[in-house]
Amino acid sequence: MTGAIPVGLSGRPVRVGLDVGGTKIDAVAVSPDGDILARLRRPTGWGEEAVVVSIIDAVDALAVDGGFARSAVESVGVGIPGLVDADTGRVLHAVNLGVESLDLAGLAGRQLGIPVRVENDVKAAALGAAVLRGVDGSMAYLNLGTGVAAGIVIDGTIWRGARGTAGEVGHLSVDPNGRLCGCGQRGCIETFCGGGALARAWDRPGALPVRDILDAAEAGDERAAGLRADLFHGAAAAVRALVLSADVERVIIGGGLTSLGERLFAGVRRALQTGAEASPFMRSLHLDDRIELLPAGSPAAAFGAAVVGATTPSKEIVSHG
Amino acid sequence: MTGAIPVGLSGRPVRVGLDVGGTKIDAVAVSPDGDILARLRRPTGWGEEAVVVSIIDAVDALAVDGGFARSAVESVGVGIPGLVDADTGRVLHAVNLGVESLDLAGLAGRQLGIPVRVENDVKAAALGAAVLRGVDGSMAYLNLGTGVAAGIVIDGTIWRGARGTAGEVGHLSVDPNGRLCGCGQRGCIETFCGGGALARAWDRPGALPVRDILDAAEAGDERAAGLRADLFHGAAAAVRALVLSADVERVIIGGGLTSLGERLFAGVRRALQTGAEASPFMRSLHLDDRIELLPAGSPAAAFGAAVVGATTPSKEIVSHG
Repeated sequence: MTGAIPVGLSGRPVRVGLDVGGTKIDAVAVSPDGDILARLRRPTGWGEEAVVVSIIDAVDALAVDGGFARSAVESVGVGIPGLVDADTGRVLHAVNLGVESLDLAGLAGRQLGIPVRVENDVKAAALGAAVLRGVDGSMAYLNLGTGVAAGIVIDGTIWRGARGTAGEVGHLSVDPNGRLCGCGQRGCIETFCGGGALARAWDRPGALPVRDILDAAEAGDERAAGLRADLFHGAAAAVRALVLSADVERVIIGGGLTSLGERLFAGVRRALQTGAEASPFMRSLHLDDRIELLPAGSPAAAFGAAVVGATTPSKEIVSHG
Repeated sequence: MTGAIPVGLSGRPVRVGLDVGGTKIDAVAVSPDGDILARLRRPTGWGEEAVVVSIIDAVDALAVDGGFARSAVESVGVGIPGLVDADTGRVLHAVNLGVESLDLAGLAGRQLGIPVRVENDVKAAALGAAVLRGVDGSMAYLNLGTGVAAGIVIDGTIWRGARGTAGEVGHLSVDPNGRLCGCGQRGCIETFCGGGALARAWDRPGALPVRDILDAAEAGDERAAGLRADLFHGAAAAVRALVLSADVERVIIGGGLTSLGERLFAGVRRALQTGAEASPFMRSLHLDDRIELLPAGSPAAAFGAAVVGATTPSKEIVSHG
């Protein structure tokens, strides 16, 4: 058991969670006890219609894999990039998916005949990481992928802030002379530790540019060593920003760059320790002890989506009350 | 009426709030309706014993000024720099006051015969600003004084975070090549917009160095213009950090530098607007519309201390339940 998730009124035994990325969907079927019954990855279609079709297909493929009928599914939760209205399930500006404005919960829910809830992918992953790691108090999930963003969970609930930008530390500038960011600013944290920015700065062919950077740095390449230092420096800056602003107790690092494993974790930890050596104040925060790394391929994002799907919205609680 | 504060069990008509600074105490007497009945400033003594004596004296002087007896005081709240345990009222490391470790609530409470509650000064000021400005949702109070720190208030309650460092944006580094900070890091936000750091960088005699910097910049002094740009840049960086991490709805700027008035506000606003011009993402946050400036000499800090003093700790609510 990895962490119980809410049991719905229907008593159906399966909650489905889908993490919809730019190229693939990570899908899990979860029991009410939090056990992952089945998991698979499928390609994501491009454009609004194709995204909905991919989601329906993923649910059906998961049912085949897991040996259960679609009618056994209590709820479907979807984590997806872009601006998500979690109340209505509408998705805006998911640029990498070709989605401009999509009533995802409505369309997918009607076609599946199952309630669908939608959440921003990083926020869903944050919730998943909190449940999987059994975090009770406050934590941030720092997603190091193509881009950089964090989600904050306090006492088991996604913390959105006033306008949904809580945890958007990727676009804090930490160097006025730094690289230009896709957002238009200079020296954003994302330009230091985002996989996309590092790949652009490295600018050599290869399937896993950040891994290539670390390998080349270890082989003595000076430019690679500079980019490696940027990666660790940027991730450490993100951790500091999350603790010195929102003061979360723990920062859990996830996202595509976790495929770098211990090399990433040790580097970020060292950057935090080096910063603390110079500053008694930073030392008193013990930041190096407050980070952890999700294992590569962690199902946190899809699992978190399943938790989102299984969560009765507060409005419904009132109307049933 | 500026905002009601909790009414205690005794029904006594006066709540006292004291903002204890390095050189002076700002003291207010407040009615349960939130009206300020009396206000005065007195010098602060140096050292643990002298701080307690100054507090007793300030309460007595306030009673004389306000025409009420000490027995009419329901509660005393104290905002004080340093590490404060709000549950016990103990103060640690208030360096500017010569306080290493002081049971302030216990000593002052026994000598006054009135319950005393103690809070970190910036957190108390944040609460005071929230009540005085009638902020319902989330806000940060950004204190630009000798140093730089913020306090966060959500739904009328001070938000401490996991270890009490929520809002400590003054020590986020935003320039790896920036000035050395007292904390040991380089390029902290405080090195850009803290009055102490600006005075050291300016290094010319004068009672109000930051005002002198603005005057000299307006008269064409290039070094002063650079420091003026730093001031606005640093304050804008603090606002961004607070919104992109904790996502507060509003940021209210207070502290000693508010004596600069509209020159400060217009400059910070322009820095936020300039940043937004380069970035559609930053533009979407409308940061320039989310800041406000307390008037110079605002009683927010002392008023907030009075609110702290009048707040029954949650433990007592339970024991009375």
